Amino acid sequence: MTEPARHGPLTGLRVVEIGHFVAAPFCTRILGDLGADIIKIEPPEGDPVRQWGEQIDGNSLWWSMHGRNKRSVTLNLKQPRAADIVLKLVEKSDVVVENFRPGQLARLGLGDEVLRRARPDLVIAHISGYGQDGPYRDRAAFGVIGEAIGGLRHLSDHAPGTSDLPPVRVGVSIGDSLAGLYAAFGIVSAVWQRDRVGGDRKGRTADVALTETVLSMMEGMLPEYGALGKIRQPTGSRIPTAAPSSAYPSADGRWILIAANSTPLFARLCALIGRPDLPDDPKFSDNRSRVANVQELDSIISTWTRQLPVADIERRLNEADIPCTQVYTAAECARDPQFLHRGMVRTVEDGLLGQVLHGGVVPHIPDDPGAIRWPGPAIGEHTDAVLGEILPAEQIAMLRREGVI
Amino acid sequence: MTEPARHGPLTGLRVVEIGHFVAAPFCTRILGDLGADIIKIEPPEGDPVRQWGEQIDGNSLWWSMHGRNKRSVTLNLKQPRAADIVLKLVEKSDVVVENFRPGQLARLGLGDEVLRRARPDLVIAHISGYGQDGPYRDRAAFGVIGEAIGGLRHLSDHAPGTSDLPPVRVGVSIGDSLAGLYAAFGIVSAVWQRDRVGGDRKGRTADVALTETVLSMMEGMLPEYGALGKIRQPTGSRIPTAAPSSAYPSADGRWILIAANSTPLFARLCALIGRPDLPDDPKFSDNRSRVANVQELDSIISTWTRQLPVADIERRLNEADIPCTQVYTAAECARDPQFLHRGMVRTVEDGLLGQVLHGGVVPHIPDDPGAIRWPGPAIGEHTDAVLGEILPAEQIAMLRREGVI
Repeated sequence: MTEPARHGPLTGLRVVEIGHFVAAPFCTRILGDLGADIIKIEPPEGDPVRQWGEQIDGNSLWWSMHGRNKRSVTLNLKQPRAADIVLKLVEKSDVVVENFRPGQLARLGLGDEVLRRARPDLVIAHISGYGQDGPYRDRAAFGVIGEAIGGLRHLSDHAPGTSDLPPVRVGVSIGDSLAGLYAAFGIVSAVWQRDRVGGDRKGRTADVALTETVLSMMEGMLPEYGALGKIRQPTGSRIPTAAPSSAYPSADGRWILIAANSTPLFARLCALIGRPDLPDDPKFSDNRSRVANVQELDSIISTWTRQLPVADIERRLNEADIPCTQVYTAAECARDPQFLHRGMVRTVEDGLLGQVLHGGVVPHIPDDPGAIRWPGPAIGEHTDAVLGEILPAEQIAMLRREGVI
Repeated sequence: MTEPARHGPLTGLRVVEIGHFVAAPFCTRILGDLGADIIKIEPPEGDPVRQWGEQIDGNSLWWSMHGRNKRSVTLNLKQPRAADIVLKLVEKSDVVVENFRPGQLARLGLGDEVLRRARPDLVIAHISGYGQDGPYRDRAAFGVIGEAIGGLRHLSDHAPGTSDLPPVRVGVSIGDSLAGLYAAFGIVSAVWQRDRVGGDRKGRTADVALTETVLSMMEGMLPEYGALGKIRQPTGSRIPTAAPSSAYPSADGRWILIAANSTPLFARLCALIGRPDLPDDPKFSDNRSRVANVQELDSIISTWTRQLPVADIERRLNEADIPCTQVYTAAECARDPQFLHRGMVRTVEDGLLGQVLHGGVVPHIPDDPGAIRWPGPAIGEHTDAVLGEILPAEQIAMLRREGVI
């Protein structure tokens, strides 16, 4: 990996993460990718996500990406002296991000008021399942539950009546990552107002709920229900308002996505599949009629796609300039020429794992790109270096003997 | 709607949007929700998304939310004089956000260099399907295609071999909204570094690609593939690493999500469904064995859920303190007591539509909440007010006669 000359627009921002699992660590990953200095407070046994997914010699591959650009400081928060150390770190930091159950940090002696005594203009992001107040505040925050409450699960399904199988989970912890992303947005918004020339120098608190970040993505669902009583329903592989746009089966058992939902695209598709009569058929002559007769239309298109291997279909569609793609698995993502060109798939040297494939830095900021400065560290890899900035060496040694760090 | 005293941390940030459809307008919606002043440049016929989804007397319900807090200025960018007006607005603005095909703005006389001549420290966000360079740069940016290239479509499906139906589209334009969200994060990061005391006063460009924002959510997919050749596969309604966690059918044809994937939760669930023997059965005694025997386990749980109406199941699970929820549709979202308590479902007075249900402001910032200052405006509703800040009235009248505005 070649290190770019600059390290991103958040260079100079210092963030303490008191988090675990996905949401808060995802938030600090994207802050760190753009240059922020992330100090991750980690229990002696490590963030539980280090145990998730595939491992090599007990080291997690996901962690290599999830923990990158962070400095790991071991701290046993159950020890009463730990809170003092956190507060010393907070004194020198711009931001605290946490995702414990609402109220838990306060019970550990690290409530908002205490944190702000250490650093009066501190920006704090609390991430939770349901928010810091209200009747559901104390409920356990399971991502799959929150995604269903936000309305996303209901819509990620085949159309009513076409399948007996349950609605699918979006294949990643989308609710947690969304909460992390919204928290990052809230944090930088707050520090902008605080720090800018003419700004107000005030700390702010972002209270981010997983359920709410999911609900915020639901487009016209609420307005349409409120005014018309219309309950939006899932449409499986299709989109509700345009056709043809779906995934079609190939002869070799793959899926090909085709989006030919405009008049010229549809005409080109019909010519390609040997059905130049279709655009003149009143059943398919405009988008409205194509949506109304989408089942018949998709079955005509599938008849063609079933005869050919997916690579062949894709080549022919590309030659006809019709938007399409195979459904990418990890393998296709890893070798996609555009991702490689853009640095969105890169090989990173990981001291624990060897060469590891990472996703790139998003968003791409060409005149000041962020960087993968280092992969996810070992538990407590930076304890001495970070605490050395605030405590004398003898005291660090004592804390270690006492099991605080 | 009662107006809060303050309007969010982005108060004072001025943004010009030259966008359409979902990604750029979603970006400016969340910037505007936190207080930024959004000037939306709109063609005389309006943003095409105004025609999407349900309408009342030709006015879009989705638009009421999608366009809120924005000032709409009509401008026909095909007219040569339009670029001068944009540049005059840019002179007084912090940010430009756009999502046309790469290069299109430059062809209209509004390339990055031209924009920065008007405003040297301008922050620019380009949102596109594949990014501003590379072999796929000029491809049409259809959201469903980009989501498949980012790897999300493959994973949002039933497990291999369990269904002949195609992988489902996540029920909203998730790729577009993610691109908008990452763009907002990039923009605010850039203005923080530019504007802060001690900052560098430099403009930056965020080059946000839909495919890349999707790929960035894919957790351990790339590292696990790179090191072990493991291709992550979909798991339908379940999660791959823990059990039981799935959607189960009720007697009245609904789905109930149950997440009892810890030892104490599982024990409580077994007692509730009358199978206190299961936690001692070696097939289900720990998480690893439960994952290995998940099909049998889910069928036991379903046998119980099929006998009861969903409300009854939910009540019993809540009494036993087991995380669960019905799969919410628009109707359940709209009446959820937590969403209502948190202001995440609110009624907004819309001059064109009457009372409209909106989602709230995310992230919630209690000490400086954003606001829904007004719903999506009519096309060009603010043309005179905004242009009045930079041009004399006679000139505005002339531009109108000439069809520029």
